[in-house]
Parts: sequence; structure tokens; C-alpha cells
Amino acid sequence: MDTITLPTAADMHIHLRQGSLMTMVTPAVAEGGVSICYVMPNLQPTISNTEMAVAYKAELEALSPKVTFLMSLYLNPALTPDEIRKAAKAGVRGVKSYPRGVTTNSESGIESYDIYYPVFQAMEEEGMVLNLHGEIPSDADKNVCVMNAEEKFLGHLKDIHLAFPKLKIILEHATTEAAVKMVKSLGDTVGCTITVHHLQLIVDDWAGKCHNFCKPVAKYPSDRAALRDAIKEGHPRFFLGTDSAPHPSHKKEGPDSCAGVFTTPLVLPYLATILESFGALDRLRGFACDFGRAFYEVKNEKWVGEVKLVREEWNTPQKYSFGGEGIVGEKGDVVPFMAGKPLGWKIASIN
Amino acid sequence: MDTITLPTAADMHIHLRQGSLMTMVTPAVAEGGVSICYVMPNLQPTISNTEMAVAYKAELEALSPKVTFLMSLYLNPALTPDEIRKAAKAGVRGVKSYPRGVTTNSESGIESYDIYYPVFQAMEEEGMVLNLHGEIPSDADKNVCVMNAEEKFLGHLKDIHLAFPKLKIILEHATTEAAVKMVKSLGDTVGCTITVHHLQLIVDDWAGKCHNFCKPVAKYPSDRAALRDAIKEGHPRFFLGTDSAPHPSHKKEGPDSCAGVFTTPLVLPYLATILESFGALDRLRGFACDFGRAFYEVKNEKWVGEVKLVREEWNTPQKYSFGGEGIVGEKGDVVPFMAGKPLGWKIASIN
Repeated sequence: MDTITLPTAADMHIHLRQGSLMTMVTPAVAEGGVSICYVMPNLQPTISNTEMAVAYKAELEALSPKVTFLMSLYLNPALTPDEIRKAAKAGVRGVKSYPRGVTTNSESGIESYDIYYPVFQAMEEEGMVLNLHGEIPSDADKNVCVMNAEEKFLGHLKDIHLAFPKLKIILEHATTEAAVKMVKSLGDTVGCTITVHHLQLIVDDWAGKCHNFCKPVAKYPSDRAALRDAIKEGHPRFFLGTDSAPHPSHKKEGPDSCAGVFTTPLVLPYLATILESFGALDRLRGFACDFGRAFYEVKNEKWVGEVKLVREEWNTPQKYSFGGEGIVGEKGDVVPFMAGKPLGWKIASIN
Repeated sequence: MDTITLPTAADMHIHLRQGSLMTMVTPAVAEGGVSICYVMPNLQPTISNTEMAVAYKAELEALSPKVTFLMSLYLNPALTPDEIRKAAKAGVRGVKSYPRGVTTNSESGIESYDIYYPVFQAMEEEGMVLNLHGEIPSDADKNVCVMNAEEKFLGHLKDIHLAFPKLKIILEHATTEAAVKMVKSLGDTVGCTITVHHLQLIVDDWAGKCHNFCKPVAKYPSDRAALRDAIKEGHPRFFLGTDSAPHPSHKKEGPDSCAGVFTTPLVLPYLATILESFGALDRLRGFACDFGRAFYEVKNEKWVGEVKLVREEWNTPQKYSFGGEGIVGEKGDVVPFMAGKPLGWKIASIN
């Protein structure tokens, strides 16, 4: 098989940033073969209400008119059930919970999900999606660190699901076998996104290699195998969310590296290459195009194109430049995932 | 207690490098409060025979005449029992095995220790020490990665010890609870070095922080606790080997960081600060000065000084420069462990 034709993909977890970086990244969504994406709200300031989400969406649409942007709010103690209802009416699709939110207003750092139950109740009624960054804060006294922070979070996923069985919940960017097992064990309202890079990396790959460093960190080979197996079996609740998170290279290559891997411009070439490496190329369409749209019950997309991928060996670019003449804001380069390394597939056309 | 007086320390695992970097690092040994050290042979080319070890020792002594340098050979298939006997007569103290040596001449990568049994036999007879870098090579198919490579090595330590019960063996730079348990379970001929940095770091601390990246990598909080507990209990087979491994900062801060943490110029201030943080300051002398010398059966030291440490808050320097005018070779900076961070103790005098 030397060509693959499939619909433009759905990336259900993406960071599109602000300013000059947003100006570079947002048009790259379609270049990567993606026509619908779920946009993270962790800007400065965070997207915490309907107005901000609507305004951000307008900025993104101006940069990439054909792509459908699903917007989210940042879970925070000021968010009210009324605001949830207002957001739903304005088309905001979900709410993202970050670990930081987990610890706010709670000494133990975890029981604080209870304070969000009225918000979750409103979300369930409005059909909004709850996106969980599923890690608890590191705590040496309790032997919690970046390697087990996800596994130790999973009980909270289960608790929220049991309390709100009709609420659609997504465990974002799963990295562990334990997470795969937990998601499978729960009801059909619980989904799970998997990134491009976690299908490729293990802990060795970010040890001393800043461009592969992200949160949650990539873990054991057996964990990577579990993620791959969920795709190989074509499980419909496991779907693409790249968590593509560009940082200027000078913020990656230094004493204190920013967490994040940049995959947006090459999502489908990466995925075709990586899925083929573990014998799951036949699952590309389900994982990247169909299952995410189904879980989010997507209607009214602005545009769904047809992507033609061709088998061709070529190298990932070393960098993507942003900013510069005529563009307000910072100027720099972003080093993409697998920079300079070979890919086995290329996008020939998107129509 | 605001002053501590103790003998100059013994660092039983140190990288002193070559060229301009050696010229900076070697005099720093005594500055850190150390008067005897066991020198690693992983130069380019590796120190693989007696002549090379003797010549390297002369270079080091010219740079730091008072310090006693214990020399080692690099374990490799060309090393013969005759060479071991020759090395022992010349005062070479031991042989270092690196993981690379483990895989040479063996498809499975491990059974190859058998080929060294004649060498180990000669070492046992000559009273030489075998230093093991205790990690097996990463192998995704067997779920081996940097996080469990040490634990999965421990069976080999046991096997060699059982085959050569009188051979002194050191598991170098232990990082796991499993390693501590294994060393304790074996006979008195098995020792274990612990670095400064592994008493302080966990996996979170090198995630995206290149200056804390080393091999073996720092692991779980429970592993760090086991290392600390071995010191708190004053176990005489656990002693200082810093594995101080300087790299120019441009080789640390980049896409592919060199592994190694630099602690040589501040060994005793670091140790006093860190041991005090976990209530083991009273074990400083045993861990840093006495136990290593006893295990190596050190006689005829060129010099043992008296170090006076005083309680004083000050900051670790940001960098140590090497090379420059009049010095042949590369020029650059090395960023030390805990650069810019506070230390609680300072060396007031060494006499």
C-alpha cells in the first residue's frame, strides 16, 4: 500500500498559543491534515469565561478560516453553573482541568474536585465535555513523582465518572498501561486522548533530550505498548489529541526546559509512520479521524477535506520559524518532534 | 553545632578528564575537601593497560601533588590475567566495568561477564577491586529502560560475588532501594558508592533540567529515601563516590545533553548541607572519610589533612571556567550541581 486516502483528521487536544507563535501555529493545523481541533485554554490570562473563548476563537478563525475550532474553558473556582450554561449556548464545547486547579483551595490537593461538582452537574446537563490532565502533584513524602503521578490520579477519574455517569470525561494524553486499563473499565462516557509522541517515546528518549520532554512524561516500554495496543485493537474511546505544545527553541534548550512537543504541522505523516511501525496503519482513520468526532458528537463542521498520503521517505524539518518582519511579538524557531529524522509518509494533497 | 572538623574525605569514584578540563578539575579535588580519590578510566582512548594508568597518574599528580590518586583500568576483552598482575604490582587499584563492556562479544548482552572470569580470578588473587556500573542496556522488547536498568542488573552483581566471594566488588553510584537491599544482603566484600547528587535528586529534578541529568538517572522518592537511610544507619559498606562528571555547559544545554553532574569543588559543603537536611550530619565522617578508605584498605596516603567546615549560608557558584590563555585545549564553563542555590556549610580551612 503506497497511498492512503482519508478525511482530514480531528486533533482533540491542541495548544495554539498567542501572538506571533499563534500566527505560525494556527495555519499549520490544516497543513498537518487536521480540519477540526479542540483548543486548550491555558493562555495568559487563562480562557476562563465565555467572552474570552469567543474572542480567542475569532482570532483563530481569522488565521485559519476553514478549520473548525472547538473551544474550552479553564476550570477554576470562579467558574459557575450559570457561566457553563452561557458558554454552552455560545458553542463552547468543554472545560479543561489542570493539576494546578486540583490543588487550589485544598490543603490535601485532591479533595477539591468536590468543589467543582455543581459545575460538573451543569456540564452534564448541557452536554459539555470535561478534559482532565490526569496527574496528581508530585509529593516526595508520598512517593509521588512524574513517573507515577498519572497512575495515582486514576481513582479521581473513576470517582468523577461514578458521580456523573452521563458527563463526558476525557483522560487527556494518557501515558500508562494503568490509564488504558482504567479507561477501558469505565463507561462509554469516558474517553481518552493519546498524543503522537507518546506512541513513539519512552523515558529514555527524554532523558537528556529536551525536545522530547513533555508532561506527562513518557514512561516505560510496557506503557507505550499499552497505548499502541489500544490503537491496534481499534478501541473507539481512544483517539487522537496531540497535545502539540510549541515553545521557542531557546526555552527548550537551557537549564530549565519548557515541557511540550510540537507536532501540529505533520500530524498525519507522523501518525502514518509511527502506526505503521507497530502494525496499526489500518487503524489510522479510526484513531485520527472518526473516534474523536464521534465522542465529541461533532456536527456542523465548517469543512472536511480529503487527505492523500503517499509513501515517501523524507526528513522532518529542523525547525519552524515564527515572528519576524511585519508580525507583532516574539521572533524565534520551534524545533518539531523528530527534527531531522526520517518519516515514511508525506501529505501529497488535501482537497 | 556550627563547626565540624574531620579528616579530608575519600571520593571513591571521580572523573578527572583530560586536557584543559583536567587542568581545572584536578586541583579542585582538594578544594572540595578530598585528599584521596579513585579515578575513572573512561578517557579517549580508554585507560586499558598499566602503562596508560601510570602515565595518567603522573599527569594528575603534576596538577595536584598532595592528593592520592588511586588508578583503575577499563574492563575490556583484551585485558589478561597477566596484565592484571602487572597492574597490581604498579599500584593500580582496580578495574571498572561499563555497560558497554557488558554487551561486547555477547548477543544477549549479559552472559559476557563469563568471559571475564579469568580476569576476575587474577583480580581476586591480587586484591584488586572490581567496580561495576550496574545497569543493563535498555531494551524495549524486555521492558528495560533507564528507570529499571539498575534493578535488573543486580542479579549479575550477586552472580559475580558468589563466583568470587573474596573479590572486592563495588556497585557504583547506586540509585535504587533494590540496590541497597541487594548490597546489604551480600557479603562483606561487596561495597556500594553513593553520589552527592543522588542523595538530593529524584526523577522530577532531571525532567527538563539538563544539569541534573546523569546516568544512572535519579529515580523515585522511595529510592532516594533508601539511599539516605543507608547513610543514616551508618552502614560501613555504603560510602562516598561522587561520580562527579564535568561537561562543558554547551554540551549539557542542547538537544542531546551529556550525562553527568559536577560536584568536585564543593564535595564536603554539599554533603554537610544535604546530610543535615535528612538528619544524618553525624554520619558525614563515616560516609565521606572512613568507610571508603577502609573498604579499599588504603595505606600510604600522601597526605591527610584536617578540614574545618563552618555553618554559613552562601550560594553555589554559577559556573567554573576552564581553558583559556596559556592552556592547551578547549575553553569553556562547567555548571556545578545546585548552581546559584544556597548551601548551609562552607569550608573554612584545610590544613
